Amino acid sequence: MGSLASFNELGNGFSNNVNPLDPDEFRRQGHMVIDFLADYYQNIEKYPVLSQVEPGYLAKRLPTTAPYVAEPVEAILQDVQQHIIPGITHWQSPNYFAYFPSSGSVAGFLGEMLSTGFNVVGFNWISSPAATELESIVVDWLGQMLDLPPARDRMLLKVGRENIGKLVVYASDQTHSALAKAAKIAGIDPKNFRAIKTKRSAAFGLSPESLRHAISTDVKAGLIPLYLCATIGTTSTTAVDPLIPLCDVAKEYGMWVHVDAAYAGSACICPEFRHFIDGVEGADSFSLNAHKWFFTTLDCCCMWVKDPSSLIKSLSTNPEYLRNKASESNQVVDYKDWQITLSRRFRAMKLWLVLRSYGVANLRNFLRSHVKMAKRFEQLVITDNRFEVVVPRYFAMVCFRVSPSALPFRNADDDNEMRANEFNRKLLETVNAEGRIYVTHAQVDGIYMIRFAIGASLTEDKHVLMAWKVVQETVDAMLNTL
Amino acid sequence: MGSLASFNELGNGFSNNVNPLDPDEFRRQGHMVIDFLADYYQNIEKYPVLSQVEPGYLAKRLPTTAPYVAEPVEAILQDVQQHIIPGITHWQSPNYFAYFPSSGSVAGFLGEMLSTGFNVVGFNWISSPAATELESIVVDWLGQMLDLPPARDRMLLKVGRENIGKLVVYASDQTHSALAKAAKIAGIDPKNFRAIKTKRSAAFGLSPESLRHAISTDVKAGLIPLYLCATIGTTSTTAVDPLIPLCDVAKEYGMWVHVDAAYAGSACICPEFRHFIDGVEGADSFSLNAHKWFFTTLDCCCMWVKDPSSLIKSLSTNPEYLRNKASESNQVVDYKDWQITLSRRFRAMKLWLVLRSYGVANLRNFLRSHVKMAKRFEQLVITDNRFEVVVPRYFAMVCFRVSPSALPFRNADDDNEMRANEFNRKLLETVNAEGRIYVTHAQVDGIYMIRFAIGASLTEDKHVLMAWKVVQETVDAMLNTL
Repeated sequence: MGSLASFNELGNGFSNNVNPLDPDEFRRQGHMVIDFLADYYQNIEKYPVLSQVEPGYLAKRLPTTAPYVAEPVEAILQDVQQHIIPGITHWQSPNYFAYFPSSGSVAGFLGEMLSTGFNVVGFNWISSPAATELESIVVDWLGQMLDLPPARDRMLLKVGRENIGKLVVYASDQTHSALAKAAKIAGIDPKNFRAIKTKRSAAFGLSPESLRHAISTDVKAGLIPLYLCATIGTTSTTAVDPLIPLCDVAKEYGMWVHVDAAYAGSACICPEFRHFIDGVEGADSFSLNAHKWFFTTLDCCCMWVKDPSSLIKSLSTNPEYLRNKASESNQVVDYKDWQITLSRRFRAMKLWLVLRSYGVANLRNFLRSHVKMAKRFEQLVITDNRFEVVVPRYFAMVCFRVSPSALPFRNADDDNEMRANEFNRKLLETVNAEGRIYVTHAQVDGIYMIRFAIGASLTEDKHVLMAWKVVQETVDAMLNTL
Repeated sequence: MGSLASFNELGNGFSNNVNPLDPDEFRRQGHMVIDFLADYYQNIEKYPVLSQVEPGYLAKRLPTTAPYVAEPVEAILQDVQQHIIPGITHWQSPNYFAYFPSSGSVAGFLGEMLSTGFNVVGFNWISSPAATELESIVVDWLGQMLDLPPARDRMLLKVGRENIGKLVVYASDQTHSALAKAAKIAGIDPKNFRAIKTKRSAAFGLSPESLRHAISTDVKAGLIPLYLCATIGTTSTTAVDPLIPLCDVAKEYGMWVHVDAAYAGSACICPEFRHFIDGVEGADSFSLNAHKWFFTTLDCCCMWVKDPSSLIKSLSTNPEYLRNKASESNQVVDYKDWQITLSRRFRAMKLWLVLRSYGVANLRNFLRSHVKMAKRFEQLVITDNRFEVVVPRYFAMVCFRVSPSALPFRNADDDNEMRANEFNRKLLETVNAEGRIYVTHAQVDGIYMIRFAIGASLTEDKHVLMAWKVVQETVDAMLNTL
């Protein structure tokens, strides 16, 4: 590299190259990739859903340096087929039941194309008014669908900077790991992060009494309660924290309450699920990841804040090179002041396409169909008395395991729970290694369980039935060899 | 909303709807949007490059709630044309010379399509090995193209958490505003952020002597020097901080040195520009935004870290639900531990497509053609003695203004510099309001200047000549009315 010289290298740089954004080439190559991806979706079930490659596989197949001269798109797509696809874990496969879904859709994809095509950097209003205004509009639409309360003023939290070491953040021990990481990054002393213990008897929801006890202990010790994160649909088991009493406790201490409904918030656009976020009017902020279970491609996190001024006060910057009349008119929103980074993608385009292409009716239907399939799977688990559903199923995820009682008795000293954990761990590994379905696990309160999360857009009844068959057959074989 | 019921609403949720990811619909609608965008690029010069809408325009045109029933893609695209495009500031227009470029390309777009199509959430290796491994490969490729040093060990910075209030961050007063914001978010006391003054006589580069003076003053006061950000190509004027002597000073104090080459780093793949980052081997981290001037759609920020372990130590989380054999084998990278968020888009796909589709030769050519056009523009400015180039042009941005001496003499008490600032401010506003081109400004050391940044992929010689004509004609008219 660097020692070669091509015709282009020696050219004048103006006329010898096709422009990198040439509209005719855009059209030709764009159609080619649409067909490539449509074929991919048509054939997706032929691939093992969990990638079967070994660490380091790709470096063995690709060159060690970038090409010096251009390569045709045909050759690149061939490499995608031969070398990239084997290394993909197919989140869009109908047999993907792992983690939480990453539910793609035609509308989400089209929105991403438009966003990428315009390729604007919407940090302030003037840099593309439509990006800012469409974002306000669609996030309001979704807020209405969720029946969120409209914004109102509140007293700003007033904590002197010299007290940063005294601030305490509260959440349950089921809260997503992102919270502890965010708190650490924000300068909160990790020893002031309280992961309050939850119990299986309360379905792993955060107890308001435990919260009050933790806060009052801290206050007595001279610390300052700052922030409570309540979760609607935890990652391990989709547990739900009781918003109304938690917000009451937090209010007494003037804390900021954030509601993390990253996964389960989507379901709350259906009237029959809305009760899970009752009490949200007592919270200061609420978030939902449309890229999880709302048919919008990664990434699209929606956040509502009761009092944006406290956010803006904290995150606003106004360097001279970004000054403009529109911002100074105070008639517009500059979303750069609502987030950490300056650059912003035009994500509103995706959410708009999804909301319009499907409408509220179909979106509810899609979500309900996933919940219905989860109920069916739950029923299958219950019907086979070797298995148990470990925690209540609220949404489209079933947490189940082979019961300790289904394992052959060995001797009285055996720890049945530990044996069950080992058995279920091996069950998960065996099922995943085989590649027909992909599921993941959780371990809560000492219990190892399999998380069966439904939400891939292509999943239908038959895939759920097949998955259950795979689980049953694997257990049959495992029990036979015990 | 909520009171209507459609057939779908009452259906069983399994069979009455077209699947949201139906491959045939994907193909049909995907082709439609490719044609829509190809037409957009073909017609892009017909639109005013800076959006001419008024604040609040879009809410007047769109409904106040999401539709209850699905809408056809044809209707949505019609609305994009009629209601969204007027609110777009066309960053892809060849007449866009504002801020820094957001240089789209066919290859960048295709990479985005593939990334979105697979829609994997590559937080750890197992969640899609290809996403992690391709990222390591292409970032290595680009590192080679920039001739960055390979990684090596270094002593971890050891600062007790109780001293967070004593940590000091250093940069020049030309550093991007994102740094002060990041430092504040990370818990650095804003009064410990040093924006060291630069001078026009040093082309606004950070002086190592000034840095040393600031550090030694802080150390005497009991503070702890933590971090230096040096910039190659500042936002206001593309100033370049001298890396070799700055790293020498920082090394004496054991500080972390980050090199922000967000914009100008791209040019450094050309041998004739590589000298701008000479000394980078003395830094701890280096970043470049491929979405600025490297033909990769937003967003794609590349970062190299000398010692990833210090990053991982700070950002790693290992909740049970993410545990897997591959991670525990220590044979793989889990990029979640290199960043703040857990979810990650498959951005490597975009960079790979760009590198392969164009090759090093064409990429250098594209960049050189932009620099060549900037030189031509600079020459035009110099030739008209009413104008001056305010700071040296290093890359593809020219900072110019109408000279104070070109303005008619009024009286001896006039502040000529202030009058020039006012004149140039009005020049910028007039040019932008007319909509044929879009440029932005900077104000440095009291001087208001127009930033003419070349880098939109569709820009050719003729657009640069036209832009200069627009500027000249506007100045002619303005001087005539003085």
